[in-house]
Order: sequence, then structure tokens, then C-alpha cells
Amino acid sequence: MTIKRIGVMTGGGDCPGLNPVIRAVVLAARARGWEVMGIEDATHGLVNLDYRSPRGNRLLDVGDVDDILQTGGTILGTSNKSDPWNFVVEKEGVKTTIDVSATAVENYHKLGLDALISIGGDGSMKIAQKFCDLGCKIVGVPKTIDQDVAATDTTFGFMTAVQCATDALDRLHDTAESHDRVMLLEVMGRDAGHIALHAAMAGDAHICLLPEIPYRIAPLVEKIKTRKANGKPYSIVVVAEGAHPHDGEASIEKKLGEMPKLFGAAQRLAVALEPHLDLDVRATILGHLQRGGSPVQFDRILGTRYGVGAVEAVEEGKFGQMVSLRNHQITTVSIKEAIEKQRLVDPQGQLVHAARSVGICFGDE
Amino acid sequence: MTIKRIGVMTGGGDCPGLNPVIRAVVLAARARGWEVMGIEDATHGLVNLDYRSPRGNRLLDVGDVDDILQTGGTILGTSNKSDPWNFVVEKEGVKTTIDVSATAVENYHKLGLDALISIGGDGSMKIAQKFCDLGCKIVGVPKTIDQDVAATDTTFGFMTAVQCATDALDRLHDTAESHDRVMLLEVMGRDAGHIALHAAMAGDAHICLLPEIPYRIAPLVEKIKTRKANGKPYSIVVVAEGAHPHDGEASIEKKLGEMPKLFGAAQRLAVALEPHLDLDVRATILGHLQRGGSPVQFDRILGTRYGVGAVEAVEEGKFGQMVSLRNHQITTVSIKEAIEKQRLVDPQGQLVHAARSVGICFGDE
Amino acid sequence: MTIKRIGVMTGGGDCPGLNPVIRAVVLAARARGWEVMGIEDATHGLVNLDYRSPRGNRLLDVGDVDDILQTGGTILGTSNKSDPWNFVVEKEGVKTTIDVSATAVENYHKLGLDALISIGGDGSMKIAQKFCDLGCKIVGVPKTIDQDVAATDTTFGFMTAVQCATDALDRLHDTAESHDRVMLLEVMGRDAGHIALHAAMAGDAHICLLPEIPYRIAPLVEKIKTRKANGKPYSIVVVAEGAHPHDGEASIEKKLGEMPKLFGAAQRLAVALEPHLDLDVRATILGHLQRGGSPVQFDRILGTRYGVGAVEAVEEGKFGQMVSLRNHQITTVSIKEAIEKQRLVDPQGQLVHAARSVGICFGDE
Amino acid sequence: MTIKRIGVMTGGGDCPGLNPVIRAVVLAARARGWEVMGIEDATHGLVNLDYRSPRGNRLLDVGDVDDILQTGGTILGTSNKSDPWNFVVEKEGVKTTIDVSATAVENYHKLGLDALISIGGDGSMKIAQKFCDLGCKIVGVPKTIDQDVAATDTTFGFMTAVQCATDALDRLHDTAESHDRVMLLEVMGRDAGHIALHAAMAGDAHICLLPEIPYRIAPLVEKIKTRKANGKPYSIVVVAEGAHPHDGEASIEKKLGEMPKLFGAAQRLAVALEPHLDLDVRATILGHLQRGGSPVQFDRILGTRYGVGAVEAVEEGKFGQMVSLRNHQITTVSIKEAIEKQRLVDPQGQLVHAARSVGICFGDE
Repeated sequence: MTIKRIGVMTGGGDCPGLNPVIRAVVLAARARGWEVMGIEDATHGLVNLDYRSPRGNRLLDVGDVDDILQTGGTILGTSNKSDPWNFVVEKEGVKTTIDVSATAVENYHKLGLDALISIGGDGSMKIAQKFCDLGCKIVGVPKTIDQDVAATDTTFGFMTAVQCATDALDRLHDTAESHDRVMLLEVMGRDAGHIALHAAMAGDAHICLLPEIPYRIAPLVEKIKTRKANGKPYSIVVVAEGAHPHDGEASIEKKLGEMPKLFGAAQRLAVALEPHLDLDVRATILGHLQRGGSPVQFDRILGTRYGVGAVEAVEEGKFGQMVSLRNHQITTVSIKEAIEKQRLVDPQGQLVHAARSVGICFGDE
Repeated sequence: MTIKRIGVMTGGGDCPGLNPVIRAVVLAARARGWEVMGIEDATHGLVNLDYRSPRGNRLLDVGDVDDILQTGGTILGTSNKSDPWNFVVEKEGVKTTIDVSATAVENYHKLGLDALISIGGDGSMKIAQKFCDLGCKIVGVPKTIDQDVAATDTTFGFMTAVQCATDALDRLHDTAESHDRVMLLEVMGRDAGHIALHAAMAGDAHICLLPEIPYRIAPLVEKIKTRKANGKPYSIVVVAEGAHPHDGEASIEKKLGEMPKLFGAAQRLAVALEPHLDLDVRATILGHLQRGGSPVQFDRILGTRYGVGAVEAVEEGKFGQMVSLRNHQITTVSIKEAIEKQRLVDPQGQLVHAARSVGICFGDE
Repeated sequence: MTIKRIGVMTGGGDCPGLNPVIRAVVLAARARGWEVMGIEDATHGLVNLDYRSPRGNRLLDVGDVDDILQTGGTILGTSNKSDPWNFVVEKEGVKTTIDVSATAVENYHKLGLDALISIGGDGSMKIAQKFCDLGCKIVGVPKTIDQDVAATDTTFGFMTAVQCATDALDRLHDTAESHDRVMLLEVMGRDAGHIALHAAMAGDAHICLLPEIPYRIAPLVEKIKTRKANGKPYSIVVVAEGAHPHDGEASIEKKLGEMPKLFGAAQRLAVALEPHLDLDVRATILGHLQRGGSPVQFDRILGTRYGVGAVEAVEEGKFGQMVSLRNHQITTVSIKEAIEKQRLVDPQGQLVHAARSVGICFGDE
Repeated sequence: MTIKRIGVMTGGGDCPGLNPVIRAVVLAARARGWEVMGIEDATHGLVNLDYRSPRGNRLLDVGDVDDILQTGGTILGTSNKSDPWNFVVEKEGVKTTIDVSATAVENYHKLGLDALISIGGDGSMKIAQKFCDLGCKIVGVPKTIDQDVAATDTTFGFMTAVQCATDALDRLHDTAESHDRVMLLEVMGRDAGHIALHAAMAGDAHICLLPEIPYRIAPLVEKIKTRKANGKPYSIVVVAEGAHPHDGEASIEKKLGEMPKLFGAAQRLAVALEPHLDLDVRATILGHLQRGGSPVQFDRILGTRYGVGAVEAVEEGKFGQMVSLRNHQITTVSIKEAIEKQRLVDPQGQLVHAARSVGICFGDE
């Protein structure tokens, strides 16, 4: 088939490396003489062709992607509330969800797209698969700052987020040592603790709490007290968003449960820990700082490779496929297969083992 | 008088630049043949000569301050709970405060100190003055990350903290623009909003809320809505810890008052703002990240100049004086005078005026 | 008088902070309802209205200065070969200079400018003064990365350049210590050594060579050898571009003179030093890296204040004046006065004295 | 066998990540109750047990590796002039090389080493193999900032060096665009161009010259001129140290040959390019800046994993083996095999292909 025009859109939470993908898609597609239609704010621009927030869909040329390689965010905007099969509409103050997928598919054709490159996470890939089933020609590009997509060795944004968390830990070391404090840093990772594990290893943390390894209070207290007894009256703790106490720790669970819901994992743990220690405990939440910032070199290159790979997949008619990095080479996997399996931290794996070998405590023993 | 041995200690919250001061004190004093006794954890080492957390008082030589110029924190440790006139002691779980100043003065002499350089903030300077009144020979070095000591043009740590907040704002821009969000960043500044004001100007914030300028909700909402109407459906708001609504905003005040006390200024404002907007509002608290980190070049140099200046003040017998930067030159002022006057942001001053001129909204009009 | 349209241009070498000035000029002027004409590549756009490299003169609106606060360089382009009184033209391969000032003045009027804000260094200010003398209404903004304009306390770009050099010194420390080497870092500063002096103090250099303090080889060798004897078999040397040996060192001068002209101060010194030492000597030239990069917060704020100040000076009819920072306040001085006096490092000043006090050797004793 | 004491040493050029390896070796070995003897300055400490520069061999305990995870350089010192089989000695000003390998082996036993972990590059591994052949028990850890050891997927230091070069390119973009210049950046890579290729892709370079792809002048000139014709009157060129013109370019080769030998690849190319262009051409040499600096998070983690892996290899008696990263898992390969094959950039490989797809010119077509 002959490609004349492709679309490109970004979905889900933003993540450093999206702009490098968009740039590479535009450069590689324009070099083939294709037109590239940028879709605004994930599927919002597809559901509603008049959508403007702020700019709406537009053709992208080489000049539009100049100077975006080194930038965070996405020039196309993104959204995590735009599933066409469960589209939120508000009428007289009441929110309901409706199915606007038929309109989205119609608009795909109205826009004259021969194919659509969808950059996004798990949710976006599920939507992409549904579009494929309705005859749209989709190539996926995986995006997950948490690195929890098993179908690819790694994803862009992850290295930048770990670097951001590592830099924060370097800073917390100074003040923890000066004030004899226990410093908790909460990082992203609701289901998968990869960012927390890597940041703890790179940032010289003494304790690391992951969703995959439920913790007990006693080993944490012992680790901190042993450090103090050895002339280190301070400790650094990395806490993944999704870290939680072991089932056996029912009383803690209850105590944590009584705290305001807006409190995250680190703030709750701080409250639980402090009575057991004669050291101040302080929580810092890294939050959205992890999503922004100029991508580190690795993420710029990986984004570029993904973008080039996606254009080549379109050229070769590999629709319903997602680009993927396997053993340092770009390849493709079926989107269907890709959305089936999440990558979690393996508590028995080599990385956790290495972390334990340099003394990091996971609160499980 | 002949100086044979001086002491040096750091008090109050830590702040990038303390180690450069300590280093310069040691280098300049050793070059004069003086001994330098480092006092551990502010006055803790003075109140109790057996204090070890982790190391206790110790003589510092040139080799001990190698490689600390570029480090955050303080190699001497610090504390903001060590006022000898209100010293906290715990007996059978009950905390009381007692006056141990006589012991501290006795220990000053036991340590053989001919003078003591006390690096610290407002609280530390008040204590320093009391020690002077009891015959100890003290030279002060001002430390306030908030830059709120009027007796010196600026202090170390401030530039590093503003840079840290500016870097955070650069990151938040990416994600705010990608997601059409209102991003609130809470920075230090309980009484004085200098960090917030500088960070807002350097980090391209659209709204800046300071302790010195009580805000109203209406102008904030209008600013954000106007931006959205002009094709900018996102806004960045810098909130000083001590920012608070105008007295007239009683209903907001009440609503904020109902929120958990652990919520800071930014989280409370987020809750208050969101009902007025059709944009997501997210709060990030920079917290202790602002205190750590390698000092920027300016703070390394200023710390060095303060340290050299303090040693020269000791040499010249200027006790009861504090070093100070005035019009780019190091000079001294009396500690008595220095603790009298706080520097606040001047709402009519040139800096606020310049900020308004580039469109920053302070919520007051 | 009523202002309808102003021009703005940047001249001389680029420097971090130019874009913040341009942004503030545009925001403050547009808020007054004025039009702002950006002139391309210094006076090139004024000499030739058809000049396009790459874009040519253009009206700047608020949207054009979005997202430039944090960027290095200048969106208007710049040049240091565009003096209208000595304008270089090439005819059949032969370069000659002609006087095109009359054309430039004519174009100033053709563009409908009521005033022109000229951002630039010494050379640009001299040209600005000549334009004033011919009836153009000019307000100057000082730009010198070397901080060598005496008429203002400091200039934007300087802090960013010193930070860049300090970061480089932090890096060189690692490799110098690992390999027992003498590492020379050449930084900007042909006439004025401010960058070198500040970087040496912030970057823990052991030797600092400035244009203002001619050096001798013997004290350098002694410093390096004494360090080695004291268990520090490595040294870090900061060399300003314009550093040169003392007149008495005739033989060295001669030896240096025989080296290729393209060799800078650091490479030449490396060749001269190595025979005297049993350590490897390596030179690194920071070069253009010092001019680029995102401006540090201070330079973003100072640029903003200058831009606002320049617009206010136009409003108040202060033509022939240059904005200036005096004791932390923006004010104005006459351009005539400003171009008369260069600020050099004072060898007897407080900063050199503090540097000596922490052991930095200037090669003069 | 029972291990009681192991040695550890670092050889060859320094590289960010060495300290993380040393730290992990010490932590993992001490946890097993082993002693760890740090050998100073590569084999210098082995050849001469009285060697002190500055400290000499010493037992390393947990406290000695505190706070070194985030540091560049190596606390053990290193050297690339210490091959015991060709050991340089100086007698009355004359340098000769002698074989001191027997002494080194004797000292290995005198130090009571049960095994020795040798961290180093190609040269160090060849020496390690020779020690193995003489009965010493060696485990190797690969170190090459150039990533040119084929026996492991990647090595620490490489990511930090590429990030350093990328940051430099980001800076050069600013000044190149402002001044309409061609900016050349010379990066490390005498035989293998991995750093240059990655930096060019991450740093938005327009031209990339590698040792593996000889260049011609004509395509470079055309690329730069086409960019100018398209409104981009500036270009960024990354030049690996070992980049060289194509054999056919004999006249250029000759012209380059006439330049001083101290001129590197970039300076020579600048001289060759300038006559063909009407743009200024400037060269920057990144040099030793690439070797220093705090390791990025990836290199800290990889170093830690290598260190733990090396201790485990010792425990398992895998002598004559080198740790290696294969498909994200730490494993071992025989040192013999490892030193046989260098990894070069594959001109037909996926990465060069992706770089071409986004418009990077390699000067070969």
C-alpha cells in the first residue's frame, strides 16, 4: 500500500522522551514524503475534530520539531481521561461516560490517515488494539515511566526519572547527615517498584520499600537503630508509592488506615515509624518533578529509535504491532501480546540480590 | 591578646555553604598557627563534652576540610533544639527544659577556647549574644537560607535554594503544559518570601504567593482563566510556606482551617482552588530538597569570604560582632543590632514591581 | 512624547541572559501597548532591511517570547562584525570597510522606531552613543560575560559562566586526584580575570592566573611541589585567557612565543611547566561552553530586571542612558560615562585577599 | 578454598563508576568476613610495597567506602604506565623498561592475597591474564569509557561520558544559533566511535564523524550549505578523536598533516573546512571533562553490580574470568576471550541507520 499521511498522538501521563519520539516520527516520515498529522491531547483530537486545547490537530513539518529533542513533555499534549469507549461527558454538572468510538473511527478516516502511531502506556495500547479491531491501522510505541511493560526491555523516561530521584537522594543525604534524621523519599511506582529499586541503589539509600515486597516495621527499626549504634545516626529510605506493610502487620495497617487518604505511602510510614525511634523522621514526595525535565541522553536516543522504528513498521505494514527494545535492538511485538504482561520487580532477581549485598534493607527480613 | 585555639560550630537548619565557611575558618586559622576545635551538633558539644553523635568535638586540621568546599550539609552536624537556656531533657518519658548555660560557659573554658565562631541563624545569634554577655568571645556568621537577616545583603544557601526551586519549576512546566494543569510548588519561607519571589521570577511562574502579600482567591482564578482563554490552559503557581489568604477571605480561611494540620500552604490552596476551575490542580512540596545539594558557586565563594572574615574579626578582637556583606564587601555589625531586624519582601519594592511588569500575579489585585 | 514602536537588538558575543532581557522588554512594552520590532543579528538588520539570516527583523508579541526565559543564546541573533562605521564588505574576494551609518540611521526612521533598546558590550555601547549623537533615541543594556563594565555592579551571563567553569573544575578534580596530574583549565577573560578568580575560589583550585597579576614560573612550581610533598600529588590551575608571565620571565616569554599562535594561555603554560615537574600536565580549554547553556536563576532575574528597567527608561525619555545595577537596585547611567571605565580585578582587593587566605597561589610571590 | 583476604586495584584511565565498584567489592567482601587490601595506583602498589603516592596499599573497611558511591575518580588511584612486564624506570635521566613481574607476583603473596580483583581496560586485562598464568588468582572487572569491549554489553562510565558530551552539545547549540557558526565538538574515541555516535544522536548534531566511517569534505560542505539554504545558518558537528578523512581525500590528508601534531581531529578539521564555507568554524575539545564528574545513576548501579559480581566470582573460584553484562544480567567470561575482540561501531548497524534516518550526516555519502 502507499502511505500518504500518517497520524501521531501521545496518551497517558507525560514522560521525558515523548518529544524525541514525535521528532523522529516526523523526520523519518517527511523523508519518505509522507504527511504527518499531530493529534492533540491523546484521543481528544480524534473524538472531536474541533477540539482546541490549546491548538488542536495540525500537520507537522520538519520545522515544527526543531529544538524539541532536548525537551520534556509532549508538544501534542496528552490526557489520561480520553478513552473513546468510556468517554467522560458532563451535562448540567453530572458526569457520565459514553461510547464515542464510532465517531473516533470515522474521524480517523475523515483526517485521511493511512496509519496512526499511538505512543502510550498500557491503557493507550488497549485502546489502540480496539481501534485495530475496527479496521484502523495502528503502530504502537510503548511509554511507561515505571518500566513495567514486559514486552520491551526498557522504555524512555525511566532513566530520566531514576536520575531525578537519585539527584534528590544525593540532596537528602546532606541534610540527613547534618541533622541526624531519617529521611523518607516517596517516588513513583504504584504496582512496579523499578524506579524505587534503581534510585535506592544509585542514591545510597539504606532502606527500600517496594510494592512487590511487603514490609514489616521491626526490620526497618532494627536497621535504623543498628546504623545509629555504628555511628551513623541517620538513614535514607526510598518508598515506592505502592509500598505497603505485610499482611501480618495488621495493627500498623489499621493505624495507617486512620490517616487522611491524601497522605501517601511515605507520609503514612513516617507517622508509623516515628514512635519507634529517637530520631526525627521526615517525608519528601518527589511527585510530578519526576515526570518533567530534559530527558537524559539515553531517553533521547531510545525515543529517537522508537520513532524511526515506528515509521518503518508503518512502511512494512506491521499494524497491530508495537515497537520494542530487545537485547539492544529495536524490533516489534503484537500489541495484543504486549498488553498481557506487566513487568514487576523480581524479589529473587539479580538486582534485588545485588542491593541486599551492599546492605540495602527491604523490610522483609 | 594572643589566640591559641578557637572553636567553630554550626546551628539551626542546615544550608548549602556551611562547609565552605568551616573550611575557610580552618584554613585561615591554621595559617595563623591557631588550633581549631570543631564543636559537634551546635551547642550540644558545648553543653556536654562527652556528646557523641556521631563523633563529638574534635580538632580540625587542613586535611579535615579537604574536599568539603563543594559539599552540602555541615561536617560538624547541627541542631535546632540545643538552646542552653532552654535545654530539653527527657526523664521517664517526660520532656522538660532546663538552663544549662553555666555548664556551657564552663565547658567553653575547659576546651581552652580563646574565641568561638558561631555560624547560625537568628536563634543562634541570640544565644551567641547571651554567651558574649557571660564573657565568652564570640564572632557570628549569619546563616539563613531565607535571606531574612537585614544586617547583611545576602547569605549563603539562598542562591542554591532558589536554583533548586527554579530547576523544579522548569520541570513542572513540561508536565503542566502537557496535561493542561495548574501546578503549585511550595517552597521555603515562613515569614519572608524571598525564595518564592526569586524562584517565581526565574522559573517563569504565573502566580506567586508570599507571606508579605495576603492573597484573595478571585484574582488567582481570574489569572488562570484568562491564561486559558488566551490559549494557555495551564498555570504555574509558587507558594511560600507562609503564604496565607487575605483577612477578608474568611470563608476560605475557614475551609482551609478544616483541613488536616499536616497539610501545607500549597496542599490547602489546591483544595481551595480546584472547585473554581475546570483544570486539574496539583501540589508539589519541595521540602528538604532545598536544603541539600552541592552549593552553587556564589555560595561557595560567599561562605569562603565569611569564614576568612570571621577569622580576621577574631584576630582584630571584634567580639560580639557578626560578619556581613555590604555592597559586595565583607564587614562586621554588632550581633545585638543584627538580631533586631528581619528582612521581608517589600511589596512596594523594585523586585515585586519587576515581577508584576512581566505579568506575575500576587493575588492581591 | 508618545511611544508607539520600539526596537530591540543584541550585539557582541552571546551570553546567557539575553533572552530574559528580550522577553522582559517585550512583555513590559506590550503591556504599555507599544509595538516591539526585533532587529536581526545586531546592526545587520539595521544596515540592511532585507537582511535575512535566518529570519530578519520582525515584530515581537507576547507569544514570541513564551518559553525563552530559561534558554541561552538570543532569539534575535547577534554579531561582533557589524559596526556601521566600519562595516565589512567583500567585493571580488577583497574585504574592505565602509561607513554605512547614514543608511542605518535612515533605516531606524524607516522602521518607525520611537526608541531602540541596544543590548551589548563595550563595542555595542560605543556604537549606541554614535547613534544617539545622530539623533536616534537609544537606551542601553550592558552585556559582558566577563563582568568588566565598571558602570554596573554585575551583568547577566557572568554567574552562569562561573558556574560552568566551577562544574568543570569539580570534574577535573576527580581525574587529577586519580592520576596524580596537574590540570590546567583555561577560562574566558582576555583583559579582566573575574571569571577565573571566582571559578578558582568556587572550584577549589590551587593556582589562579589572571591578566591583572603577571605570574612567574618559580612560585607555581614551588606550590605544586609543596602540595606533592604534603601528600597531594596533584594540582588544579585556573588560567584566564589573558594570563601572561611577568616581564622578568623573559626566557619563558621567548619559549612561549615560539609555540604556534593558535595555542592558548593554558596550552602554552603546560608546555612551559612540564619540564619543571615530575607530574603529567594537561590543559583543558572551556571555550564556547561558557557562553551557552540555560542561564542560572540569578541571570534570568537580572536579565528580567534590566529589560523592565530599559522599557521604563524609554518611557521616561532617558535616552543615551544605560541601565545598571547599583547596590541591588536598577538605576541608569549615561552611556558616555559607562564606556569610559573597565572593571578589572583589584590585586589588592578583598576577593584576591580571601583567595590567598585559603591558600590559592597567584604566581606572584 | 577459604578466602581470608582479597586485593582490589584500578588500572588505566579513570572513569566514572570506579568508586561504586570498589565500594561494592568492600561491602560484599566484608559481609563475608574477608579482608580487602586496596592496591595503590594500579600495579605500582604491587611492584613496590613501599610505594606511596599519596597513600600506598591499605586495608579497606566499610567506613572507608562511605560516601564514595556518588563520586568520580578512584580512591585507589590509577595509572596507565605500570605494566610490570614493561615497567618504566628512570636512571640518570634515561628511561628504560624492565620486567618486574616476578617481584609483583612475589608481593601478591607477601600481601597474603587469596585473590585479586583487577578493574581495568584492555591493557589491564592482558596484564591480569599474565598474572593468572603465573598462578595469581584474578577476577577481572571491565572498565572502558569508550564501551569498546565486545565481551560485555556495556561498561560503567560510558553513560556519564555521553551525558557530559550531550550537555556540552546543548550548550553549543545556543551559541551556534546566535552567531551563525559551525561548531565542532571533539569527544573521546580513538578507535571506537560509540561516544561520538550516541552524543550526536542525543545532542541533536547535524554531522557525526567516527573512526569507523572515514569522511570526505564534499558531503560535509554540502550538508552545511543545504542547512543554510533552508534557513539554518549554523551546524553542529561531533568529531571522535580518531575520526579521519577517507583515503581518497589525499590533498586534505596532506594539508592536515602539515598542521602541528598537538592539534586534534576537530582543530584540524576546522582548518580544512573553513575555506569551503562562508560561516565561522570553531572547535571545542571536551577532553578530560568527560572522565570526571559524579557518575549518572546507571553507572553507579552497574558499578555496584560488577563489584558484587566480582566478589561472588571469587567466592565461586572463577579465576581468570571477567564479570560481564549480558542481556541485563551479570555473568562472567574468560579474560582470554574478553581481550580478543574489540567492539566498534557497525556502519551498517541499527544505531547508525537510525541516526541517518533523522538526518545525521556521516560524511561518507
